[in-house]
Amino acid sequence: MIETPYLLFLGDAPDALAAKVAQGIKDWRPEFAVGQFRMEGCKADMGLPDMTLAEAKAAGCKTLVIGVANRGGVISQAWKKVLISALEEGFDLASGLHNLLRDEEDLAAVARATGRTLHDVRVPTVDYPIANGRKRTGKRMLAVGTDCSIGKMYTALCVDREMRERGLKSSFRATGQTGILITGDGVPLDAVIADFMAGSIEHLTPDNDADHWDLIEGQGSLFHVSYSGVTLALIHGGQPDALVICHEPTRSHMRGLPDYKLPSIEQVRDAALAMARVANPACVAVGCSINTQALSDEEALAYCAEVEARTGLPTVDPFRHGAGRLVDALMAV
Amino acid sequence: MIETPYLLFLGDAPDALAAKVAQGIKDWRPEFAVGQFRMEGCKADMGLPDMTLAEAKAAGCKTLVIGVANRGGVISQAWKKVLISALEEGFDLASGLHNLLRDEEDLAAVARATGRTLHDVRVPTVDYPIANGRKRTGKRMLAVGTDCSIGKMYTALCVDREMRERGLKSSFRATGQTGILITGDGVPLDAVIADFMAGSIEHLTPDNDADHWDLIEGQGSLFHVSYSGVTLALIHGGQPDALVICHEPTRSHMRGLPDYKLPSIEQVRDAALAMARVANPACVAVGCSINTQALSDEEALAYCAEVEARTGLPTVDPFRHGAGRLVDALMAV
Repeated sequence: MIETPYLLFLGDAPDALAAKVAQGIKDWRPEFAVGQFRMEGCKADMGLPDMTLAEAKAAGCKTLVIGVANRGGVISQAWKKVLISALEEGFDLASGLHNLLRDEEDLAAVARATGRTLHDVRVPTVDYPIANGRKRTGKRMLAVGTDCSIGKMYTALCVDREMRERGLKSSFRATGQTGILITGDGVPLDAVIADFMAGSIEHLTPDNDADHWDLIEGQGSLFHVSYSGVTLALIHGGQPDALVICHEPTRSHMRGLPDYKLPSIEQVRDAALAMARVANPACVAVGCSINTQALSDEEALAYCAEVEARTGLPTVDPFRHGAGRLVDALMAV
Repeated sequence: MIETPYLLFLGDAPDALAAKVAQGIKDWRPEFAVGQFRMEGCKADMGLPDMTLAEAKAAGCKTLVIGVANRGGVISQAWKKVLISALEEGFDLASGLHNLLRDEEDLAAVARATGRTLHDVRVPTVDYPIANGRKRTGKRMLAVGTDCSIGKMYTALCVDREMRERGLKSSFRATGQTGILITGDGVPLDAVIADFMAGSIEHLTPDNDADHWDLIEGQGSLFHVSYSGVTLALIHGGQPDALVICHEPTRSHMRGLPDYKLPSIEQVRDAALAMARVANPACVAVGCSINTQALSDEEALAYCAEVEARTGLPTVDPFRHGAGRLVDALMAV
């Protein structure tokens, strides 16, 4: 569990896109995003107060989160002076980058000397159990997709926000690095050892109030040959009561696999439901979530209407149109 | 790659079942099983020459394989004297036990001093790639099952033996600890990190001659909620041309999951084929393999005939009846 609130470190981000982790935290957990730290030449701006380390400390920040990725996703030498000062001033550090804070000898030494914690959310810190398949109390929704990187995290976050606004009980359950940094907790599923994947998701979504919803971030796709095993572990470990099918209509092939076409929404719905019912025979598909960022307003509405007519399921872009209809459908489960 | 041939260490095995790894090596790779080493009180016997370390060395043995598991699957202190002597006499050690040879300080120190290798086949030693889904040359068969521990390894080994006897080109591809110790190579799939599961199987079954068959050991089951992700990674990474469906007819529930019934052979066939065709649209189910060890001769034949009538697929217990009909079916692919 990462201590909040955060100072968002934007470093020397070459553009806004490089700071998408910081953007995600600011969009979805603005109460955690107290300020930003930008180095000379930084081209990203979250519109948050620029703070020195001392100012952030005075404002109550507990953790400096590396909200920027440079080319290669590694920890830059140019950041080191700030990161070391942050440890010395009493901040923990959190990072989702490929190379680990703990493997940087200078950072590790200062963290030891100052008693601060280095959170590398890319690697698990829990010894997860093997899944036992026992039926748990509470409700669970899982976002499944026709492909990777198609909007599953945003879908679960949008549903979570709408549920909170309605005063319903819900928890976004992060299964990837960005989601973990946004919420401060979760399972970095792609880094879990095979035997413990489903068990890690049972651990993440334990028994809860009968009217509480876990909104589980999906990963991969049953139809993506590189990562499908991760997806099936989520379906069986998550034991979902409801699936939302996520799709991006302009993609020409599976991400990273030029020879693989995307499956249809119906194929994903049918395959995922059949597998989900092994763990929870009552599971249903409640809606479709379309990532319409490449479409105009009219195109987006027309595409959603077409999918809704085809599938009979409420179909929206929850980021663009709101998640109200998805939440209505979940309440009817 | 573990150097062969082996001296099989049976230790103080309390019964024959405790030595099932040694039994597997002796049954499937008798050319690797030169001798056995038994301690006082050992109740297992492979029918191999009992050898001292010096005799085994003279007979050409390269590796002492721990072919026995005591309660808890850990390395026994009672074995240490022999294991240390073996390193000193020039043997490598190989083990599939839960606690690792390399984590035993005394063994690690002697191995370093003598320049010998400790093979812990429970953990991967290769940095596997992420799967790329590229179509590979050569043919591949995968054993899939209604449950875990149902005969998938034996099925692949039986088909491999029959193919070798016919002079066909084949390789048994081990994906579990026992299979790796039997053949000296393979992927310990349940210990691979999630993101690299499918890639590890692509690595295990590379491009090959057009008429060569990889016979891939299956793991788990698409319908076993604890391990299904591992199974799907095998289906997508293995890119099989042919599936053999494995089943044990007397099991009352999924292994370790008392509340989960076994799926039917037809359910497994249909779900596995649908998923396999994502990676290889030409994949077909070629036969069923029934583990009939709990049935009489007549019951076994009757059960196989019933499954064959129901599914239209050649159905045998390859360990009891031979794998000839399965190999005939593979040759027709």
